[in-house]
Amino acid sequence: MTDVDKALAEITRGAFEVIPVDELRKKLESKKQLIIKLGMDPTAPDIHLGHTVILNKLRTFQELGHKVVLIIGDFTASVGDPSGKNTTRPVLSKEQILFNAKTYADQAFKILDKEKTEIRYNSEWLEQLGTVGTIKLASKLTVARMLEREDFTKRYQGGVPIAIHEFLYPLFQGYDSIVLKSDVELGGTDQKFNLLMGRELQKDAGLEPQCVLMMPLLVGLDGVKKMSKSANNYIGVHDAPNDMFGKIMSLSDDLMWQYFDLLSFKSIEEIKALKDACLNEGKNPRDAKIELGREIVARYHGEEEANKAVDNFINQFAKGAIPDDIEEFTLSAQPLPSLLKEAALCASTSEAMRMLKQNAVKIDGNVVTDNKLVLEANTYIVQVGKRRFAKITIS
Amino acid sequence: MTDVDKALAEITRGAFEVIPVDELRKKLESKKQLIIKLGMDPTAPDIHLGHTVILNKLRTFQELGHKVVLIIGDFTASVGDPSGKNTTRPVLSKEQILFNAKTYADQAFKILDKEKTEIRYNSEWLEQLGTVGTIKLASKLTVARMLEREDFTKRYQGGVPIAIHEFLYPLFQGYDSIVLKSDVELGGTDQKFNLLMGRELQKDAGLEPQCVLMMPLLVGLDGVKKMSKSANNYIGVHDAPNDMFGKIMSLSDDLMWQYFDLLSFKSIEEIKALKDACLNEGKNPRDAKIELGREIVARYHGEEEANKAVDNFINQFAKGAIPDDIEEFTLSAQPLPSLLKEAALCASTSEAMRMLKQNAVKIDGNVVTDNKLVLEANTYIVQVGKRRFAKITIS
Repeated sequence: MTDVDKALAEITRGAFEVIPVDELRKKLESKKQLIIKLGMDPTAPDIHLGHTVILNKLRTFQELGHKVVLIIGDFTASVGDPSGKNTTRPVLSKEQILFNAKTYADQAFKILDKEKTEIRYNSEWLEQLGTVGTIKLASKLTVARMLEREDFTKRYQGGVPIAIHEFLYPLFQGYDSIVLKSDVELGGTDQKFNLLMGRELQKDAGLEPQCVLMMPLLVGLDGVKKMSKSANNYIGVHDAPNDMFGKIMSLSDDLMWQYFDLLSFKSIEEIKALKDACLNEGKNPRDAKIELGREIVARYHGEEEANKAVDNFINQFAKGAIPDDIEEFTLSAQPLPSLLKEAALCASTSEAMRMLKQNAVKIDGNVVTDNKLVLEANTYIVQVGKRRFAKITIS
Repeated sequence: MTDVDKALAEITRGAFEVIPVDELRKKLESKKQLIIKLGMDPTAPDIHLGHTVILNKLRTFQELGHKVVLIIGDFTASVGDPSGKNTTRPVLSKEQILFNAKTYADQAFKILDKEKTEIRYNSEWLEQLGTVGTIKLASKLTVARMLEREDFTKRYQGGVPIAIHEFLYPLFQGYDSIVLKSDVELGGTDQKFNLLMGRELQKDAGLEPQCVLMMPLLVGLDGVKKMSKSANNYIGVHDAPNDMFGKIMSLSDDLMWQYFDLLSFKSIEEIKALKDACLNEGKNPRDAKIELGREIVARYHGEEEANKAVDNFINQFAKGAIPDDIEEFTLSAQPLPSLLKEAALCASTSEAMRMLKQNAVKIDGNVVTDNKLVLEANTYIVQVGKRRFAKITIS
């Protein structure tokens, strides 16, 4: 394997699509420092691990010596949606935009090398375009081509209004690529049209066209839907160490390997070795998962917190070994002794009282002794002694 | 008839459509000075009578005390068609635009009162719009609505490319109306969509919306096609007095009355009286036509030249009274005496020689004496003596 082969393998690892691969290879072979572009919408700066998949890919480019440019889309954010119909495009003040951009950058620099990252605000050149520049830019594409963008096609055919200014935004994004002379632009699979726009406009402007690298959307904790706040299946980069670690430990093994590919800084070889060990050498996948969790927690909270989270997990769960198939109950709110009896964790309320007194009752891993406690409506893992477990939902 | 009724009658005289008439009436009833807008494309400043139909209507508004604003579309003319596909939209320099605008204004002031006319260049406000203003303007309309414009519909359905910037031009025209706070905008029937755009954008901006007055396209000399240079059926405002007058005298009577409505400064009553005289009182329509011709020629060349053109016409044609049903011949090129014999204008070539000598032969109204003359391929009215005529085509 040549260096370029290795670089290409790391770059395309986990990628959904690269357009076109042969051009990307040529760019890598040229040995020049490539300009890698990522656009960032400053309306939603709070990120979860799903958002970091692309940042990780940028990090790979940095490790290979290339230059990353983060474009803060402050220009369109300051305009918002002038039709007022799209609530996902609020008008932001310059202060809000700067604050959001800083928040985003702080999070991004957990992954990226600050020294090898340039941050640009696209208002710098889009404001200068002016009326004439905007007209000229708009002349670069036809209405029919723009309507080929999947969401536009659907809306147009479904009679859902498309305001004309929406046709300008992909062109602005493409214009950013002209200004930056970007070699590669990264984005999600839903960005394909806009990413290719940069390529077309660069060609039209007589520049070497950028390649386009699309990353898949990270699947959330449920293993089904893409990670998002609204689906409540996410790991936020601000989650507390124990939460973050616990969520990673809750992943299925399949999903864990996806996460390794998309989120770990380990090389392809290291991951392959780990996988081989699990598949062929009897290594417990849980131990691989612990390694992943430790890496991710360390990224956002430091080594020390990561080690604590691992220890905590092992103490609470691994040593206590919650069985996989504990019984589930749905019960009405009632004092703890009768609840323990109802869930068959104790033979009688008096046994329950005794176990409480002996510090032998845990709720969600915490010892409980109050025999008057009435749990609120929620779901709890309740443990009595070492072996008795139940999952109780208070209705 | 109230004053407003009379004003409305003059304003709607010859109009193709007014939208909406009741609002126009209210504006007239308000007694305020109305702002009447006409946009002018400075790419083709040379005008023929077809172009003056709308200028005449502006004059009517001026006579009623209202203010006319001519918008010179210098902004879009300076951009041209950035796609380079539309040759009718060349990029013009500021100098060319100013020159064209001046040429146009000089011609327009043959009709309009200079003191009551304001000339504005739309670059004044369109340049200031900038990128953000253009985005906001573009947000005012949906793609679907814009595609309802007849020519866009046809092109889209026919697979003929529409560049996205073309969607911006109707919006810019509408924006002009916001800036001017125009009460009425005039245009041709082919401008309906763009004229109504001004109305919509004004409403959206919380202004009293303009009314729209569309004038029909003037039919050319052939009585069939609209007047245009390409159809060679036009009367140019720079045509020489005799040409201009002769072309008007060649109109059919029906067309003459249309021209009276659309081009004459005479009032509705005066024209009605003239028409009555022709229809019911035995007045020769040719005399009405002479009045129209005199008025039009006087407008562009002054009274004196108009009178000369009338006299000249009467001398050449009216007094010579070319019969309506002269015989037509198609003959080969040959010396004049034999040509006159072939067309049965003379009994023999020797008679023809004699008539030539006596100054009794006219070709297209001009005396000819050269008996060696061989006419070039063309069609001629040839007259021998007072009564003998023939229309001869040399093949």
